[in-house]
Amino acid sequence: MEHPPVTDRSPLHDFLAPNAIAVVGASQDPTKRGYKAMLGLVTDGFAGAIYPINPKLEHVLGVRAYPDLASLPGQIDLALICTPAHTVPVLLRGCGKAGAKGAVILASGFAETGPAGAELEREVLAVARDAGVRVIGPNTSGIFNLHHRVNLLALENVRPGDIGIVSQSGNMLLSLALEAQQNGQVGFSTYVGPGNQTDIGFDDYLRYLGEDDKTRVATLYVEGFRDGRRFLDVARQVSAVKPVVVYKSGSTELGRQAASSHTGALAGSYAMTVDLLRQSGVSVVQYSDEILPVAEGLGLLQQARGKRVAILADGGGQATIASDRLAEAGLQLATLSDVTRQRLAEVLLPQASLANPVDVAGSSDATPSVLADCMAILADDDAVDSVFLVGMFGGYHLRFAEELLGDEMRGAETMIELDRRTDKPLVIYSLYAPVKPPALRRLHEAGLPVYHSIEHAVRVLAALGERGEYLQTTTSSEWATTVIPHPEQQTVLARAHQEKRDLLEPEAKALLGAHGIQVPNETVARHIDELGTIAREFGDRALAMKVVSKDILHKSDAGGVQLDLNGEPALREAYTRMLASCRAQVPEADIEGVLITPMARKGTEVIVGMIRDPIFGPVLMFGLGGIFVEVLEDVAFRAIPLSRQDARSMVSQIKAKKVFEGVRGAAAIDQEALVDLLMKVSSVVTAYPEIESLDLNPVMAYPSGYAVVDARIIVDRTVSVQSEGETA
Amino acid sequence: MEHPPVTDRSPLHDFLAPNAIAVVGASQDPTKRGYKAMLGLVTDGFAGAIYPINPKLEHVLGVRAYPDLASLPGQIDLALICTPAHTVPVLLRGCGKAGAKGAVILASGFAETGPAGAELEREVLAVARDAGVRVIGPNTSGIFNLHHRVNLLALENVRPGDIGIVSQSGNMLLSLALEAQQNGQVGFSTYVGPGNQTDIGFDDYLRYLGEDDKTRVATLYVEGFRDGRRFLDVARQVSAVKPVVVYKSGSTELGRQAASSHTGALAGSYAMTVDLLRQSGVSVVQYSDEILPVAEGLGLLQQARGKRVAILADGGGQATIASDRLAEAGLQLATLSDVTRQRLAEVLLPQASLANPVDVAGSSDATPSVLADCMAILADDDAVDSVFLVGMFGGYHLRFAEELLGDEMRGAETMIELDRRTDKPLVIYSLYAPVKPPALRRLHEAGLPVYHSIEHAVRVLAALGERGEYLQTTTSSEWATTVIPHPEQQTVLARAHQEKRDLLEPEAKALLGAHGIQVPNETVARHIDELGTIAREFGDRALAMKVVSKDILHKSDAGGVQLDLNGEPALREAYTRMLASCRAQVPEADIEGVLITPMARKGTEVIVGMIRDPIFGPVLMFGLGGIFVEVLEDVAFRAIPLSRQDARSMVSQIKAKKVFEGVRGAAAIDQEALVDLLMKVSSVVTAYPEIESLDLNPVMAYPSGYAVVDARIIVDRTVSVQSEGETA
Repeated sequence: MEHPPVTDRSPLHDFLAPNAIAVVGASQDPTKRGYKAMLGLVTDGFAGAIYPINPKLEHVLGVRAYPDLASLPGQIDLALICTPAHTVPVLLRGCGKAGAKGAVILASGFAETGPAGAELEREVLAVARDAGVRVIGPNTSGIFNLHHRVNLLALENVRPGDIGIVSQSGNMLLSLALEAQQNGQVGFSTYVGPGNQTDIGFDDYLRYLGEDDKTRVATLYVEGFRDGRRFLDVARQVSAVKPVVVYKSGSTELGRQAASSHTGALAGSYAMTVDLLRQSGVSVVQYSDEILPVAEGLGLLQQARGKRVAILADGGGQATIASDRLAEAGLQLATLSDVTRQRLAEVLLPQASLANPVDVAGSSDATPSVLADCMAILADDDAVDSVFLVGMFGGYHLRFAEELLGDEMRGAETMIELDRRTDKPLVIYSLYAPVKPPALRRLHEAGLPVYHSIEHAVRVLAALGERGEYLQTTTSSEWATTVIPHPEQQTVLARAHQEKRDLLEPEAKALLGAHGIQVPNETVARHIDELGTIAREFGDRALAMKVVSKDILHKSDAGGVQLDLNGEPALREAYTRMLASCRAQVPEADIEGVLITPMARKGTEVIVGMIRDPIFGPVLMFGLGGIFVEVLEDVAFRAIPLSRQDARSMVSQIKAKKVFEGVRGAAAIDQEALVDLLMKVSSVVTAYPEIESLDLNPVMAYPSGYAVVDARIIVDRTVSVQSEGETA
Repeated sequence: MEHPPVTDRSPLHDFLAPNAIAVVGASQDPTKRGYKAMLGLVTDGFAGAIYPINPKLEHVLGVRAYPDLASLPGQIDLALICTPAHTVPVLLRGCGKAGAKGAVILASGFAETGPAGAELEREVLAVARDAGVRVIGPNTSGIFNLHHRVNLLALENVRPGDIGIVSQSGNMLLSLALEAQQNGQVGFSTYVGPGNQTDIGFDDYLRYLGEDDKTRVATLYVEGFRDGRRFLDVARQVSAVKPVVVYKSGSTELGRQAASSHTGALAGSYAMTVDLLRQSGVSVVQYSDEILPVAEGLGLLQQARGKRVAILADGGGQATIASDRLAEAGLQLATLSDVTRQRLAEVLLPQASLANPVDVAGSSDATPSVLADCMAILADDDAVDSVFLVGMFGGYHLRFAEELLGDEMRGAETMIELDRRTDKPLVIYSLYAPVKPPALRRLHEAGLPVYHSIEHAVRVLAALGERGEYLQTTTSSEWATTVIPHPEQQTVLARAHQEKRDLLEPEAKALLGAHGIQVPNETVARHIDELGTIAREFGDRALAMKVVSKDILHKSDAGGVQLDLNGEPALREAYTRMLASCRAQVPEADIEGVLITPMARKGTEVIVGMIRDPIFGPVLMFGLGGIFVEVLEDVAFRAIPLSRQDARSMVSQIKAKKVFEGVRGAAAIDQEALVDLLMKVSSVVTAYPEIESLDLNPVMAYPSGYAVVDARIIVDRTVSVQSEGETA
């Protein structure tokens, strides 16, 4: 790759904690951003120098103003440019001369508006490079770094805290800030609006949040990545040390269109993006209102060792709802040990339900703190990975009798103690959360968030479980082997490249077979007289015959496929018919011969593909064949190279995976063989960068092993290819 | 049906607005329900007589207490029984003598706990019937009727309003009440906890809410129905006059198990339940936190004429998110007319995006009321069914400048005026909703709810669109014809019943064919010598042969199916082989002969089934054949009888419906023919109640028409059947 290595320190450190800031277009009009930014700096008490730039004003908010960047009395680190798009290139030169390392460009009217805007954006980037100024935006909502009192959005009522945000929507930031204000405990570290990402992209911003010790959770709203592959690399590094939460828009075609007219983002396949983000350890949330709950939960709570949850409820209805949501999220109800049930029975009334979900059935009405005792008992059970309290804790004194407040507070202290002692997450839903009663405020202050939606609490449980699983498997999983390309296969690819064609089917299969992928034992007949020997070699196996020609892409349509052939006469007849048909259909075709291959036994059809995605680079795809891929889009994607865990999760992610376990009387297929195949394909395409894309369709999966029935390898025609066999 | 007709007035009117109430087990202990109920009645100022019953107390909360029901000085309408389960039967007799029409039984310890509890519950029901007292519960959280000041839960801070609630979870009610309190505008009419539904079930409660003129929306949390068919009948009637919102738990196996240990509810298939509820006009919500937003929206807003939404946003990111959610919910973005775009251009800045989603791109920063003007323009467009405002309206004066408050208030008034003038719903999301700024409070007071989650707002839009579509189509759609059963088919069914067997395949097909369903032209050979004539009759068509025997259920396994037979010799050979094999496999089998049927042309395999569900009665099922049904459970259910709209929506609901439109080179199939088939099956199974279940699998669907390839009809063996051919 041509990028600098991701371990470089982020350039954002040079100007996100600046000593001096210029506000270009500073204003006295309260509805203008040039006013708000000044207000934010002054109100929050920014400790460095503030230079408002406006030729018409002497002062802005009591701060001495300057007519232009050239007149500044000192160097600046950062400039906020609030003036219209066309003014930006000249201003950027001024920023560079004034010493600025970075500039934040608010104006819209760039690439998102069409070709003229795109041209202006290219000019901005060229000038910035030349002037040595890094650019945030254009078309950004701005930035803040609350711990450094750089609040260029002048957001009120936001607390400094440990959630970092990068959002391509300013309204999303506002919405999160208001939610945090309601929540009362959540605070933010740094915010950046990447806008059109003309210079700095999501990858760089995430790297900065990863390195920023004030940030405990990185949270991103993404319309599109500029360099998706680099983002995945950064995400893998950052998610190893802190949670990364992403909401990706564009789950539908309507959303993708809207995103493109908003930030000019090229949103690729949503399903692929989500798969690749998860592969890199990112917690992907599906709905925008899950962003803050999940970020807060991942920031405060332990990750879970596994997906076995114990539900503790003071009402059966909500226990039922919680069970539904858990199962939908792929979590499980832990099977409680006899000891645990016995211990629960000792503290609960006889009518309590001791199986998971545990329903205390009135046991807590007079002593709500018994819920805390039950949580401790559940957390002690080895079969429990996380404890989920569901119900009205915190509100007993409101619902029943004020005298219960003391006992509720005691319960809260027990929970806080338990949270310090255990390495299992305690996730708490209370229907009283919105009224913030004292016990819940106490929990929250002590780092135990309380959710007011069962749905959100379960998303947090799922994220904690997924993160725990990711951190465990990512370190231990074996990676796809690095294979050395074979010179003769490179020669084949080079020849195809030179002839501006793709690999012929037998060439593709031979390349795969050379690296241990199971391909049929097949042969190419170049003349009708070879068919006798071939027929004898294959004995009485039924054979398929396919035309071999770089000029015939759709073999079936040209009459170039014959199935179920037995014996020499049948082969000869098929050969004659096939050649006649192909020559009639594609008269100019150069026909090398016919491929004779034993008919594959019937199995479960799957497909394995590799594409080089413009955003994410080489990506492997796996799915069930035929209608499942085309109609149901039931496929899994992973970035290459693959770990064995990646390959396994590709197979188990398929919605119709029951098919692999055997349906309608069929035997279960050999999933581990498919995992091996995926690993080998990952190795092969890494070894041969000349392979532009690959399509094994179908692969027959069997109770033991598999067979690649058809294979296509498309050769990259844009780059020049060298091989042992030729001189460049 | 044996039920009284649903048009009866609900018995609940007799005691949900009582003149006198007894609280059995009234208490001075603030943690007891017998105290809370008294508190609720006294505090809320219940105008009728209150009789606390407790032999140990002279007064409760200043109200004169009585030792038992027999000592009461006057008649009662309603009794609340707060004492333990075993005391209930005796108390119910006392209630009857005291004149009570209804009793609310709080105690748990009945059917939900096991056989002994179930026995006690049966006793309770018997005594209640005998005493002429209707029972709410047992195992109920209680009731309230706020307009009548009957607040037996002593819920604080709930406003009387127009949302009626029936919930099998008391915590769910509490949660809704707290949410309503936060919301500030929502109020409730009547609440009932049905508990174990031993006497009164969801159907009766819904009927009451339908008849109650204080209730504008009926909202239900359901774990299981007692009589699902009756519920559907009531729901169809009620939803014609007011919205019915249902959250049904048990979407997963874990949830179903939890529900069963909570209220002893028998939850059937979730997918079936949801389909049948929607068929009856119910708005089904998927997540518990959508209940109140959807109920409020349906209560206050117009239903939409269709699913074409215009999004108006002041930020591109949230417009993108809104577009994603709309598309996921099956809604569409309206295509705005040129006139609309022109009118928008006149009021917005040049950088505004005028295609839907409309992004005002800063046009509202200094004049937020322009959003209201844009909403009016959008509502004028004939292509727009509903208008969705997304962004920060209401918070401009907080975000930008206090001076904007006046303009925001003007904007709110314009929206309110528009809402009065237009018959299209205006759905408003504001990220400032949680802080309730003045413009949003004004909107809310005037009946325009403001949502603080894009996700919830879209659920409301979807519910309004679905309700509009339902109300339009339900009145105009043609119903499946009533058919007169044929005497000879009744004779066939009666014979099968008598012989304790199901219909043979040719009998089943003949019955279907007699009512116009397209079955193959086929014949039964009872002797090998008939095969010659049969072969000649079918000419050169390939034939299938299947054994006909009531004793052979799995024909293929017994060697009882032979395909692709041509000509007399092949038929004879197959016949001999088949009979030998079947006799070897099932020696005792009584073989009637073999069915000879032309091989069905290859088509798209679908299945049509009918079962008599224990909860919902006769239900039709439709799906794609094979793996789609078994692995993906991609099937649609409708209660019989069917309307044409029901049948059409069954076909269009299938997730893999792209298959019907032609994939992988196949032609589109004749969907209207399938609709006809579904209508005819509905008519047939209605005409023959002796049919216990029916399975047409597969049916081949073709570009024109269809063919029923195999048919099974199971005969009800539990009832006695009469026919023309015999005397009972």
